[in-house]
Amino acid sequence: MPEGPTLAELGETELIRRLGAFAPRGQFGDDAALLGPALLGPNDRGDLQLVVNTDVLVEDVHFSEATMDARDVGWRAAAANLSDLAAMGCLGAVGITVGLVAPGHTPWAWVEGAYAGLVELLGAHGGVLLGGDCSGGGQRLLAITALGRLEQGRSGPIRRGDGQPGDQLVSTGVHGLSRLGLALLRGETLPVLPQAIREQAISAHRRPVPRFDAVAALGQCRPGALPWRVAGCDSSDGLAAGATCLAVTSGCTALLERGALPVAPNLEGLAVAEDWCLWGGEDFELVLALEPSWAAALVDQLPGTRCIGRLAAPQPEGPLVWTDGGGPIASPSASFQHFG
Amino acid sequence: MPEGPTLAELGETELIRRLGAFAPRGQFGDDAALLGPALLGPNDRGDLQLVVNTDVLVEDVHFSEATMDARDVGWRAAAANLSDLAAMGCLGAVGITVGLVAPGHTPWAWVEGAYAGLVELLGAHGGVLLGGDCSGGGQRLLAITALGRLEQGRSGPIRRGDGQPGDQLVSTGVHGLSRLGLALLRGETLPVLPQAIREQAISAHRRPVPRFDAVAALGQCRPGALPWRVAGCDSSDGLAAGATCLAVTSGCTALLERGALPVAPNLEGLAVAEDWCLWGGEDFELVLALEPSWAAALVDQLPGTRCIGRLAAPQPEGPLVWTDGGGPIASPSASFQHFG
Repeated sequence: MPEGPTLAELGETELIRRLGAFAPRGQFGDDAALLGPALLGPNDRGDLQLVVNTDVLVEDVHFSEATMDARDVGWRAAAANLSDLAAMGCLGAVGITVGLVAPGHTPWAWVEGAYAGLVELLGAHGGVLLGGDCSGGGQRLLAITALGRLEQGRSGPIRRGDGQPGDQLVSTGVHGLSRLGLALLRGETLPVLPQAIREQAISAHRRPVPRFDAVAALGQCRPGALPWRVAGCDSSDGLAAGATCLAVTSGCTALLERGALPVAPNLEGLAVAEDWCLWGGEDFELVLALEPSWAAALVDQLPGTRCIGRLAAPQPEGPLVWTDGGGPIASPSASFQHFG
Repeated sequence: MPEGPTLAELGETELIRRLGAFAPRGQFGDDAALLGPALLGPNDRGDLQLVVNTDVLVEDVHFSEATMDARDVGWRAAAANLSDLAAMGCLGAVGITVGLVAPGHTPWAWVEGAYAGLVELLGAHGGVLLGGDCSGGGQRLLAITALGRLEQGRSGPIRRGDGQPGDQLVSTGVHGLSRLGLALLRGETLPVLPQAIREQAISAHRRPVPRFDAVAALGQCRPGALPWRVAGCDSSDGLAAGATCLAVTSGCTALLERGALPVAPNLEGLAVAEDWCLWGGEDFELVLALEPSWAAALVDQLPGTRCIGRLAAPQPEGPLVWTDGGGPIASPSASFQHFG
């Protein structure tokens, strides 16, 4: 009997689309799930909104002993998950649960290191270990669920689909440094780089930081007359992927200014600088679409933030193009596929 | 360099104890994590309490294609997780997130079946698919996090450590049927059994039900003068393990009445009936310790519920003994170890 396609044949994007059909309409569209009064029930205070996010990190897919010790694996796992809460508008995390899977021969020291890293990130950026589960299995894996909440009056929901033509596109920081760190850790061929730059890049890769501070700044600098409307996501899959996702979900085209690309200064002189800025991934900054006066206020208030382009009505060239008429922005290679 | 013990050398109980040290004190003691105002923040309505629970289900550890199709895997995974919410006092689930890991060669049809089973359970017992993540990996795995809430006035928290000497021990249903179903599915040697009994047992194993109805009954039949104080857990690891856990966490000894053991009637005549009732596991009933008048009211109101013994001050024979002076109740074999 033919069984139909495998997951590798479907690809990750189509798989997620199909899985989303099992959830209520619209529930799968963002970095994390928003739980408003309709889900939390009529007896609750109407203004409480929770955000819940699950990430699975699998050895040799998302992390490797070759590039990271256990403590870094834990830190990064928690940071990636909390970054999704920030990308939804949370100012911090309530906490996380951790499902640990590992073969029986795994040293306790590795597990201890991973949990120490998780808790170190939570200690630095908010949240506690709420609970979890553990099981034997063929490979090491952390399944992390983070819970956060929106704080009425101080922040609001950030959704991928809330952008409009005319919004400014804003990046909360530079991009490409994490990819440089990965290249150094993997021993990829690179020009000789100063030790300080090497260390910064490796640290950016191993110890990313969820940008709750950017969400707080967003709330503080909102021009008084504007209602809360923020489109955004994090740049975990790369700046270009984030901007594309915002554009597609908002029914727009994203126009990036080549001269305003937030390339990490440490990449200057590298031929791959632009590619890694756009496609490197794992910098865990926020990519936001904001009404122009709000964007200007945020750039003013939050160091490292810059306008990188704007949203416009959908254009025939596709969802991601250069402002200078340079045409569509395309990935230099097939993007990363977890089921490849 | 000596790396210290492996997870297999530690064993699951010691591993969980060590992992609990990374969480706030007391956070790891129950079937799931309770999130009260202290965790949800001072701005929330003081009476909202959420419950969050994570379970990891790994192929060939928790499920096998030999005994269950994909739809049953999904149903069981969601049922087990929601059972932990019921064991904490929830009347239903808000929803679940699902982390899916599977090799690229996995047929989409299997994943579709598993999610259909998850959503079928949620449709029948409450809750929606909130979100999730997916990744390639070496073996199939579902990491499920369920979120529920306590409903002020209709239920309260159920904790393992809230039992007191003098409480009656109550089971919300019979035990051993799921283990019989597993034996049939595995082709273990058994006496010839009527077809109806075989089907009931297999269904009990494949399609367990979270006992939210028992929590609702508990709230409805509480004698007016009593404050909410309910100790309990589910019997996913077996009736004896549940009673032992209640007793230990409450600082008591659990005394079981041999004549009142809730053996599934379908097991009558089988030599293993008592063992499977006590140690079979996966019946997903609730094991509760209640003030005697409340226990009597619940037995009256909820069909299938019975008193199975009581809690007493700790006794030198251990945490689980027979009431008739028959001594400690010991497992017939080493209990199931996930890292074994």
